[in-house]
Amino acid sequence: MKKIGVGLLGIGVIGSEVATVLKDRQDIISKEVGAEVYLKRIKVLEKDLERPVVRNFDRSIFTTSDDEFFNDDDIQIIIELIGGEHPAYDYQKKALESGRHVVTANKEVLGKHLIELLDIANEKEVTLNYEASVGGGMPLIAPLSRDLILNNVNSLYAIINGTTNYILTKMTESNQSFEETLKDAQRLGFAEANPVKDIDGWDATYKLAILTDLAFRTVVNPDDIYREGITNLHSIDFDFAKKMGYSIKLLSIAKQVRDKLELRVHPTFIPEINPLSNVNEVFNAAIINGDLTGDVTLIGKGAGPAPTSSSVVGDVIKAAKVINSGSFLPVVVHHEHKPLLSIDDIITKYYIHVTGTRDDLTAEINRSRIKALKIMQEGSECAILTDLTRESMLRSFVSALKEKYKVHNIIRVED
Amino acid sequence: MKKIGVGLLGIGVIGSEVATVLKDRQDIISKEVGAEVYLKRIKVLEKDLERPVVRNFDRSIFTTSDDEFFNDDDIQIIIELIGGEHPAYDYQKKALESGRHVVTANKEVLGKHLIELLDIANEKEVTLNYEASVGGGMPLIAPLSRDLILNNVNSLYAIINGTTNYILTKMTESNQSFEETLKDAQRLGFAEANPVKDIDGWDATYKLAILTDLAFRTVVNPDDIYREGITNLHSIDFDFAKKMGYSIKLLSIAKQVRDKLELRVHPTFIPEINPLSNVNEVFNAAIINGDLTGDVTLIGKGAGPAPTSSSVVGDVIKAAKVINSGSFLPVVVHHEHKPLLSIDDIITKYYIHVTGTRDDLTAEINRSRIKALKIMQEGSECAILTDLTRESMLRSFVSALKEKYKVHNIIRVED
Repeated sequence: MKKIGVGLLGIGVIGSEVATVLKDRQDIISKEVGAEVYLKRIKVLEKDLERPVVRNFDRSIFTTSDDEFFNDDDIQIIIELIGGEHPAYDYQKKALESGRHVVTANKEVLGKHLIELLDIANEKEVTLNYEASVGGGMPLIAPLSRDLILNNVNSLYAIINGTTNYILTKMTESNQSFEETLKDAQRLGFAEANPVKDIDGWDATYKLAILTDLAFRTVVNPDDIYREGITNLHSIDFDFAKKMGYSIKLLSIAKQVRDKLELRVHPTFIPEINPLSNVNEVFNAAIINGDLTGDVTLIGKGAGPAPTSSSVVGDVIKAAKVINSGSFLPVVVHHEHKPLLSIDDIITKYYIHVTGTRDDLTAEINRSRIKALKIMQEGSECAILTDLTRESMLRSFVSALKEKYKVHNIIRVED
Repeated sequence: MKKIGVGLLGIGVIGSEVATVLKDRQDIISKEVGAEVYLKRIKVLEKDLERPVVRNFDRSIFTTSDDEFFNDDDIQIIIELIGGEHPAYDYQKKALESGRHVVTANKEVLGKHLIELLDIANEKEVTLNYEASVGGGMPLIAPLSRDLILNNVNSLYAIINGTTNYILTKMTESNQSFEETLKDAQRLGFAEANPVKDIDGWDATYKLAILTDLAFRTVVNPDDIYREGITNLHSIDFDFAKKMGYSIKLLSIAKQVRDKLELRVHPTFIPEINPLSNVNEVFNAAIINGDLTGDVTLIGKGAGPAPTSSSVVGDVIKAAKVINSGSFLPVVVHHEHKPLLSIDDIITKYYIHVTGTRDDLTAEINRSRIKALKIMQEGSECAILTDLTRESMLRSFVSALKEKYKVHNIIRVED
């Protein structure tokens, strides 16, 4: 039986689980692939050697040397689970250039460098596999890039950041402040010590860039995606949301609007009847609207070692099959940059939280070109729910409003 | 550029759409495959030649002759869209034995003959592709057999028959009888002239057999799956369900219970908080609980020409890639028959509709070993909601009850 060696970069929480699954489920893996897939080497940092998980493996498979790792010709598949842009990107590039298949869960590297890495993979006739980079244990990359490939995607709505979804779920249940909730999440391991990339929406933005490439066959730079984090949400926003029949989620949105692509990541009011509004805690979800299929909804755990290792090792099987069947087909790489719609030109509904009375604000609305669907007053605070409005027009209305009232928050509404 | 010929068997509603998609989206297909995939021949019945769709294609690709079709060496992929067991099964077998890759949406043939056909495919080094056989346009076969392959599946709950789900949705909305609703569904094209296979649960049972093979790595004969159709549901059942916070769905259930497999297809009370309870009309859904991933939920349109053709032609691309890359890996075929749990031994909750008063039935319950969670009276009619009960015990309770009361219906409850 042919033997296929796997090299693992990183032995953190996810890496440890992946190594364990590779070892414990070798029978399933080898049966599927028709070859013996085994963990040949794990590249770690000196300090990682103290981790308890290390004791579960033959000490000899660990190395702290890049050269020893990359010069090991038995390694045909390299799993990168370091995270962050560098050195992860450099390792992936080096792995592909040396003719190794790559499996990764790294959304930052792929959000920024997917196209370049796919080109290298095609040139070297190896595969780049990244199911775990978006949606954790939920199959999303594969269904989108393969099962739904014939569809022209009209829109994609996704909850793809577990940390923020956990925080928003807790803020909905309690009436804790964002700061308190974040502290709890960190204590419970649902948020990192440095949570900036999650709470500022970067993580969800990198992932949206990856999904956009697959769904809309276009390159997109994460910096060009409109992005808002969840740090400006207050418990009163959740109160108003609940009273109006909405929940608040950090939504990643991609839509084809005539000849332009509308891309945005921000907190969003979602009506309770929408399946996304009941996706809580660390669950992720995506609704893909294809022109043939109509809505396809996927929901699953977007984080955690076990779900993520299901996708990572699943990708190892796919790469190993390509190796064992001695076959390779280049993937279609999209180099075109489709034009993006400016955030000023999007048309949606808005929630506005203002200090003021219902009567005064009704008068302001009537004097403006904005149409309100609902104006709700709670004590001295008011919530305005607008009808569909062009963002630029909404902004000028709000700046006028600010001359007389304290405007606390503006949140887009999808229904 | 290499050319790969496709042969299509059947030009019904689905076949017409598939032929159209193959023609209209040839650019996407060829780009993905890296070869020119084209529709070489369509085998039809004499009468089909009158269909308007025929005029959209070069007359010369149509044939009514089996020999002309199967002797055409340009055909490397055969799509079977005839439906029913015969001659579809014979055609699929002939296609595989002649070294053609097969793509099909035929759940009856696969529900009954999947293992035999997969063995032939492996022997002939071709692929059998059947994404469209379950869930229409919703990716389900591929995620289950590929993306989630590392998981040991604990349970699978699915709504996989569009016709019955459409009827149940309408019976929930109106208080029409089953018979009236079925007539409407037939008039609107959501139910066939002969709807027996749908309304008696056969279709959902064939599909469950296919999913069970993938999820639990076992052969199962559809005749061994406990099955109840929806013909015995009355509007009063829907009234009681709504009042108790449930909806009624035809659910296909597969669970690992210790060393046995629990398989059943029947109308089921599902609590409104369960995502499956809001899957309406022709939408299908599946909740797969994997030991690594936890719950993975998939929702999409389970019927209709466009969604189905998305899956069928998606499979054509997969087969064409295997041909173009000159690669083939045998699939793992499961020949083991895992033991099934008898329906008498399942443990679940039950709804019982009885003519009688709340007081009388409470007395009966108290005299029995059954525990009731709720007893609701509407006029002369009563609904009992039991706690978890072994089916054999429930049956003896009901037969005792029948000596004194009119028992109209018993429906299992999942929550």
